[in-house]
Amino acid sequence: MSEAQSGRRARRGGGREARIAARRGSSTAQRSFVRRKVPVYEVLGEEGLSLIEETADTILEEIGIEFRDDAEALDLWRGAGADVQGQLVRFPRGLCRSLVQASAPREFVQHARNPERSVVIGGDNTVMVPAYGSPFVRDLDKGRRYATLEDFRNLVKLAYVSPALHHSGGTICEPVDLPVNKRHFDMIYSHMKYSDKCFMGSVTAPERAQDTVDMAKILFGENFVDPETGAEKTVVINLINANSPLTYDDTMLGAAKVYARNNQATVVSPFILAGAMSPVTVAGTASQILAEALAGMAFVQLVRPGAPVVFGTFASSISMQSGAPTFGSPEPALVMYIAAALARRLGVPFRSGGGLCASKLPDAQAAYEAANTLQTAMLAGVNFMLHTAGWLEGGLVMSYEKFVMDADQAGMMQTFMGGVDLSASGLALDAIREVGPGKHFLGCAHTQANFESAFYRSNIADNNSFEQWEADGSLTAAQRANAQWKEMLASYEAPALDDAIDEELLAFIAARKASMPDAAY
Amino acid sequence: MSEAQSGRRARRGGGREARIAARRGSSTAQRSFVRRKVPVYEVLGEEGLSLIEETADTILEEIGIEFRDDAEALDLWRGAGADVQGQLVRFPRGLCRSLVQASAPREFVQHARNPERSVVIGGDNTVMVPAYGSPFVRDLDKGRRYATLEDFRNLVKLAYVSPALHHSGGTICEPVDLPVNKRHFDMIYSHMKYSDKCFMGSVTAPERAQDTVDMAKILFGENFVDPETGAEKTVVINLINANSPLTYDDTMLGAAKVYARNNQATVVSPFILAGAMSPVTVAGTASQILAEALAGMAFVQLVRPGAPVVFGTFASSISMQSGAPTFGSPEPALVMYIAAALARRLGVPFRSGGGLCASKLPDAQAAYEAANTLQTAMLAGVNFMLHTAGWLEGGLVMSYEKFVMDADQAGMMQTFMGGVDLSASGLALDAIREVGPGKHFLGCAHTQANFESAFYRSNIADNNSFEQWEADGSLTAAQRANAQWKEMLASYEAPALDDAIDEELLAFIAARKASMPDAAY
Repeated sequence: MSEAQSGRRARRGGGREARIAARRGSSTAQRSFVRRKVPVYEVLGEEGLSLIEETADTILEEIGIEFRDDAEALDLWRGAGADVQGQLVRFPRGLCRSLVQASAPREFVQHARNPERSVVIGGDNTVMVPAYGSPFVRDLDKGRRYATLEDFRNLVKLAYVSPALHHSGGTICEPVDLPVNKRHFDMIYSHMKYSDKCFMGSVTAPERAQDTVDMAKILFGENFVDPETGAEKTVVINLINANSPLTYDDTMLGAAKVYARNNQATVVSPFILAGAMSPVTVAGTASQILAEALAGMAFVQLVRPGAPVVFGTFASSISMQSGAPTFGSPEPALVMYIAAALARRLGVPFRSGGGLCASKLPDAQAAYEAANTLQTAMLAGVNFMLHTAGWLEGGLVMSYEKFVMDADQAGMMQTFMGGVDLSASGLALDAIREVGPGKHFLGCAHTQANFESAFYRSNIADNNSFEQWEADGSLTAAQRANAQWKEMLASYEAPALDDAIDEELLAFIAARKASMPDAAY
Repeated sequence: MSEAQSGRRARRGGGREARIAARRGSSTAQRSFVRRKVPVYEVLGEEGLSLIEETADTILEEIGIEFRDDAEALDLWRGAGADVQGQLVRFPRGLCRSLVQASAPREFVQHARNPERSVVIGGDNTVMVPAYGSPFVRDLDKGRRYATLEDFRNLVKLAYVSPALHHSGGTICEPVDLPVNKRHFDMIYSHMKYSDKCFMGSVTAPERAQDTVDMAKILFGENFVDPETGAEKTVVINLINANSPLTYDDTMLGAAKVYARNNQATVVSPFILAGAMSPVTVAGTASQILAEALAGMAFVQLVRPGAPVVFGTFASSISMQSGAPTFGSPEPALVMYIAAALARRLGVPFRSGGGLCASKLPDAQAAYEAANTLQTAMLAGVNFMLHTAGWLEGGLVMSYEKFVMDADQAGMMQTFMGGVDLSASGLALDAIREVGPGKHFLGCAHTQANFESAFYRSNIADNNSFEQWEADGSLTAAQRANAQWKEMLASYEAPALDDAIDEELLAFIAARKASMPDAAY
């Protein structure tokens, strides 16, 4: 994707795409990602951020991080000058930071099979990605149930036709109808076949990471390698969670090594429910997150210097009464703003946010909590916004209705991030002059010239009069969303995929599936 | 309210109030207002803001503002050096700004009859105020219906017992069962009788403004006048809307004059649905808002230099397809951030925001839109957050359920605005040291010492497991809110009011009501 293409696609309003989007009932034309033109929001200044960085250094130096059941990881750390006792690694002050800053890219391109859908991760860019990992799905028709491969395909298709989602995601839901040790083939294939947006790979075992890479090599063919540098292009991005507090396990380390050695991107994410996996305070949680992320990202750089890494954080809090996770609340928002600032200071892309909520239904609780988290992620400057759409019930459920409601919010955020037009047309003095006191602007020349692109158009919100809304059936937002996702699925058309590649992918999958018995782990 | 009291009440967590709040199921202790400890968010820098200020000056100089049907207003402007042609007033560049900056206070105290409930409006402070002006109410039991005085009293009581609402508001709903020309007596009396928080006065006619002042004099007695300065204390705040574009009418001007002459506060608010009452652009709308607000605030300073004024803006956009107002969308958020910055540069308090939405029900649309507007208002640094709670259907409806859901959001915002504890306890290094890799923090000493105040506790959100939520009846957030407001009303106890004052108020009202026939205007 060239800069010029990116610029063209980032422009708002005009042209064929906007007209298509307008007919779809949304003013969001498909863009490959968002380039933010408004500032980020900072909660802390230099002094506070330095204090947290110093605390993280002390955690790394005095308390250390466990790298479990991976002798190679411990050898790498010994070689880098860390103090390894059993599986516990302690780091000289500044070691992890200097390893990351020496080789990790500040931003990188994740290539899609359709070059127009490639994304830039890092800098002022935001990539909005569906929710990830839920074993259940829910819709208004069939209620809550275990997810299947059919659901997985449906959701990949919905992400594909959602103009404000830039990415196909990863485990968009868990296809529980397939054996645990083979479902990654069907998930990866679905992303490749039913979408041409970027996607995420399997991380549940090192060999499944390798399967992901092998399938990506088939999909990209000779395009997998950059002809200029001879290096592999980054075509998958992969979620590597820490076992907080202060632990990485062999599964995650193994997957991270596979991806790093193939120059594929990893999102190294402390997964924190504050109060359980971190202290009950904002500053303590942020310090621990930084320590864990630094150690994980530095490890990736030890495996292959220059492999793309993203500073990830998933941080929420728990109810101190019940122990249940809570979302959309103020303390995790403060943590997110701080973690984003720490990533900027370190000079790496940042992942967090999304439409998180604890609600069981796509109701007002779901929307308050999701909007609070989405607004925070937008203003924090999140680069890779996993969980943007669909997340319900603390991530246990992918909601079809919430998926399209959140995607509508994603469209709004893109418009916000486009910033303010300060040109003469933006200042609109001539319009004010033409209209004058006490009149209205509906028919003035400036309005006529600009109304098509004037305001974001939601495809979910009902702004009609009460009487019109009643005549339309007195529907809730979730009911309108129900009709919307069905319409989107009905209008879905698959992107073209070369037959030979498709056949090779299917043959690879068949052979690999035949090579091992089904297993539930 | 002394500074020490304010400091005491602003502290979080400890003490009797927190324990009471905890028993109520919320971690928000009653505070008289919020002192913000986090920065504001700025969309534009110096260059952009200057450009908008210059545009506003050009609007004021070349296009002008109409002051309708108020000869005194035109005389005041002539005397101040403005160019008056008919009812159109044009202003030499900088005149309005210099009038405002010469005498309008940067911040001021609105006194409550209970001094602990007095609020500081301006600076780093935020006062959260219920929604205002809806002719309808809605609840889950009785649906949508015209509001009555009983609803008005109920909502005053709910605001009184809501710890995160600092103010009783004004026309919290329109008691449509009372004659238009007499209902202000019952509204003002309800605020005075059923709450001891600050409130807003009548603006629908100059004589009703005078009635408000006269009742306030009875309520405050000798406390109405500051013994040191001899000036009236500011005890009511009042909403003066411009008839955008570029117009003030005699009703609003008349009410503003009454309040200013009595040193009562006015919130001078351009009321804008962009695309209809202003240009379809963000920068054009912001420029027009600044011009209108400057002229209105300067007018108040001409009437009485030093009378408290607040720069208000109510700005949303319309659907360019249907003309219907839309809320929670990105363009009005950009306008709000800019207007807040313009107010700070001018040096006056700022009013905007709230839980605005177009939804007909307290559903996901309502919550997304409300949360988007509330988050924007919080980060913009709004000082007087009118419409914080209850707003539904573009302001036509006050929702009982949304009232308590929004008030819960207000509590969350207060916690966010409290900022980050960077003390040793906040950084929690000892807790991380005690727990170490792979363990959990639930039982550690730091958690035990801090868990009571650790995280905001929502009284609406259900964070339980799916199974527990099902066992509890599978309720939506709105259904839980329904139970919540009934419980709050049931537990309501009126603040004490001196019998002699109560009798004098009732006698005043009876005499005034008897002095004129009922009227429907």
